[in-house]
Amino acid sequence: MINIVKLDDKNKNYYTDNLKSRAEAVQKDVVIAVEKILENVKENGDKAVIEYTNKFDSNTINSSNIKITKEEIEKAYTVVEREFIDAIKLSKENVWFYHEKQKQKSWMVTKEDGIMLGQQIRALDTVGIYVPGGTAAYPSSVIMNTIPAKVAGVKKVVMVTPPSKDGTINPNILVAADIAGVDEIYKVGGAQGVAALAYGTESIPKVDKIVGPGNIYVAMAKRSVYGFVDIDMIAGPSEILVISDETGDPKYIAADLMSQAEHDVLASSILVTTSSELAIKVKEELEVQVKALSRKDIITASLKDYGAIFVVENMKEAIELSNLIAPEHLEVMVKEPFSILGELKNAGSIFLGKYAPEPLGDYMAGPNHVLPTSGSAKFFSPLSVDDYIKKSSFIYYSQEGLKKVKDPIVKIAETEGLTAHANSIKVRFE
Amino acid sequence: MINIVKLDDKNKNYYTDNLKSRAEAVQKDVVIAVEKILENVKENGDKAVIEYTNKFDSNTINSSNIKITKEEIEKAYTVVEREFIDAIKLSKENVWFYHEKQKQKSWMVTKEDGIMLGQQIRALDTVGIYVPGGTAAYPSSVIMNTIPAKVAGVKKVVMVTPPSKDGTINPNILVAADIAGVDEIYKVGGAQGVAALAYGTESIPKVDKIVGPGNIYVAMAKRSVYGFVDIDMIAGPSEILVISDETGDPKYIAADLMSQAEHDVLASSILVTTSSELAIKVKEELEVQVKALSRKDIITASLKDYGAIFVVENMKEAIELSNLIAPEHLEVMVKEPFSILGELKNAGSIFLGKYAPEPLGDYMAGPNHVLPTSGSAKFFSPLSVDDYIKKSSFIYYSQEGLKKVKDPIVKIAETEGLTAHANSIKVRFE
Repeated sequence: MINIVKLDDKNKNYYTDNLKSRAEAVQKDVVIAVEKILENVKENGDKAVIEYTNKFDSNTINSSNIKITKEEIEKAYTVVEREFIDAIKLSKENVWFYHEKQKQKSWMVTKEDGIMLGQQIRALDTVGIYVPGGTAAYPSSVIMNTIPAKVAGVKKVVMVTPPSKDGTINPNILVAADIAGVDEIYKVGGAQGVAALAYGTESIPKVDKIVGPGNIYVAMAKRSVYGFVDIDMIAGPSEILVISDETGDPKYIAADLMSQAEHDVLASSILVTTSSELAIKVKEELEVQVKALSRKDIITASLKDYGAIFVVENMKEAIELSNLIAPEHLEVMVKEPFSILGELKNAGSIFLGKYAPEPLGDYMAGPNHVLPTSGSAKFFSPLSVDDYIKKSSFIYYSQEGLKKVKDPIVKIAETEGLTAHANSIKVRFE
Repeated sequence: MINIVKLDDKNKNYYTDNLKSRAEAVQKDVVIAVEKILENVKENGDKAVIEYTNKFDSNTINSSNIKITKEEIEKAYTVVEREFIDAIKLSKENVWFYHEKQKQKSWMVTKEDGIMLGQQIRALDTVGIYVPGGTAAYPSSVIMNTIPAKVAGVKKVVMVTPPSKDGTINPNILVAADIAGVDEIYKVGGAQGVAALAYGTESIPKVDKIVGPGNIYVAMAKRSVYGFVDIDMIAGPSEILVISDETGDPKYIAADLMSQAEHDVLASSILVTTSSELAIKVKEELEVQVKALSRKDIITASLKDYGAIFVVENMKEAIELSNLIAPEHLEVMVKEPFSILGELKNAGSIFLGKYAPEPLGDYMAGPNHVLPTSGSAKFFSPLSVDDYIKKSSFIYYSQEGLKKVKDPIVKIAETEGLTAHANSIKVRFE
C-alpha cells in the first residue's frame, strides 16, 4: 500500500526520476519484428494485412469482410444498452462544445506598399485512429480521438481495430465510433494496422496522421512511420497528482487516487498535502475503499510502487513539487482552488475543487482525455483541434515593397554564401 | 540540366516518390555512435562534453571557456559589417511582427450550474537551439528559430554550436544570436551538444525543447531524446515548386528555381506551367544564369536529379500536382495569384506574384523559413509560436453540475470495466 513521505530534496528527485523511468523503452526485438511487418504491408498491401490478421487475431478475416458494414453497425446498436448510447451521445456533445472553442482562424495582415502576409489554417485530409481490442477497448477513447478531428474539419476518419477470434468487434466500440462520426472501420490491429494506415492498401486508405493508443508493437510501428505520416504523442502509464490542504475530503481523495491506480501497475497516484492529519486519513480510506474494487490487486501494486503521499510545509512547496512532476492529471482540492491555478505551470489537465474528480474529465466534462504523461506536460499538450490542422504561410509583395528590402536581403544572402539567393532578388531590378 | 516533361500519371508518381526518397533514413552505425555519446554525456556531464568537443572540434575548449562571454559578443560586433547588422535587425523586426500575430490566448467558458472550462496557454520555460558550424552556419536560421520562442515568452533560450578549430564561433552567428535575444551560448556541437541540452550538465542547462538543423548525428540524437524533451521536425533537403501560366517571367522563374537548387545536390526545384513556350524559355534562362553563380556545380546536379519542368494542360492540373507534391516553398506566378490561393492545400510557405521571390521569405518578409519538406506539408506546419507553447485544460464543476452527469459517467466507466473510476463519482453522492 501507499507510503507517507516527508518531502526532502533527495526523495523529490527519486520520485520524478522514478516516474520518468516508466516511459516506454525502445525494445530491439520488437523493432525488428515491426520493421518486417511494415515492409511486408508496404510491399504486399491487403495480402500481408490479411495474413497477419489471420495469424494474430482471427482466421475469419478476408478482403471482402475486413471493412465493417452498415449492417454490423446496426446490429451493434441492438445489443448495446440504451443508457450507454445516451451517455456516449452526451459525452460527444460536451467534447464537441469544448473543442469548438479551440478552432483557430486563418488570418491576413496588410503592411505599407500593398504588402500582404497571412497564415492559412486547414484541416488534415484523412486521419487514422488506432483502437486497441480486447480488454483495453475503451469507447471513450474513440470519442476523444475522433471529435477533435471532426471539429477541425477532417474529411475522412478511418479507424482500425483488431477483431476478436470470431471476427467481430466489441459492439460498444462500434456504437461509439458511429456516434463520434468515424467514416470507415477496418478489422485490423497491431503493427499491420498502423502500416495499412501509413502506406495504404487496396482496401484501406492511406492517411496523413495516425492517432490513438496501442501496445508496444503499435507504439513502435507509429514511431517508425513518423515523418512519412504524422503521429500523436506516444502515451505512457497514467498519472494523478492531488494537491490538498486540510480542507480536502479524504474519502474523495482516496477514491480519485485509485481511479488512476486501477489502470495499470505502472500508473502513479500521488497526494501532496500540507496536512499530516489528512495524509493519515487518506491512507486509511484507501485501505477501506480498495476492498470493494474489482481491480484491487492492480491498485495495491500501483500505489505501492509508484504511489506516495507527500507531506509538505506549505502550499508553495506543494505547487513546486507538482510543477516538477508535471502530472498528466492534477486535482486541486484546496479551500480556494482558483487562487493557485495561475501558479500551476506543468500539467495535462487540471481539476479544480471537490466536484471535479478525474473520471469527470475522462468521460464527460469536454476537455480531451488524451494527455501528456511521464513529465512531458512541461512541453506537450492535451490532444486538441490543433493536432488535426496544418498551417501554410503566405507572402504577397509589390515591386515597391521588394525594392525597399532588396539590399538587406542581398547582404544576408551573400554573407551566408548563397549567391543564387542574392541573384533571385537582383534579377528583378536589372 | 533540368528536363522538360509532359505530365502523365506515371511520371507524376515517379516524381512524388523520388522526392520522398530523399528523406533521411535511419543509419544503424550512426545510431550506435550517437547512443554512446548520449549515455556518456548523461552520465558524465561536462567532462564528456569537453572530451568530445576536444576530439571532434577544437582542443582549446574547457569548462571555463565553453560559455561565450560578453566580451566575445562585443568583439564579434567589431568585425561584422555594419550593413549586415542593420539587415539582421530589420529581419528581426519583420519576423517579430509576423509571429506576434500567431499568439494564442488562454480562454475560459462558463456553462450552467457554475461549470467553468478552460485552456491555459504557457510558454515553454527553456528552449535549446542547435546551430551548425562551418559553412552551414546561417545567421538567418538563428533569427528564425529564436524569435518565435521570444514572442511566445520563453524565459531562457540556450544556443549550442560547434567551435572552429581555434575555439572561436563565426562572428555573424554571434551577432545574429545577440540581436535575436539568445540568452546563453555554448561552444559545443554534434550529438554531445544535443545531449547536453537534453540532460543538462554542470555548465549547460537542461531544456524543454531542442530546435534547429544539424547533420545526421544531430538529427539522430534529436530523434533519440524525443519524448524526454520535445524536438522540432527533422528537416529534409530544400524544395521549391513554381506554378506559372504564360504571364510568368522566365528570368525570375529561373533565378528562383536556382535559389533552392544551390542549397544541396538533393534539393528539388520544379516548375509546373501551362505554357510550353515558357518551359523552353526558363530552361534557356537557367543555362545562361547558372554560369555566373558560385554554386554552379551543385545547382546543375540538383536540377538534373531532382528538378523538372512539367507542362500541364491547365491550371487545375497544375494545382493538383502541387497539392500532390506538397512543396516546402510554393511560388505562384500567374496572372491573378490570389485567385488560386484557396485551392493550394499543401505547402509550407506560399509566395504570391512576381515580387515575392523565395529568398524574400528566407530572410525578410516575416513568416518563418523553417518549413515542412519531403511532402510533409500535408500534415506538418511552418515553425511558429505554437511550437514554443504548451497547453493545460482545466475543469471546475459544482456539486449540482456533477450530479447531473453522475449516472452517464458511471455507466461509461462500468462499461469499460473501470470500477474505481465509477467509485470516484459515487463516493461524492453517498
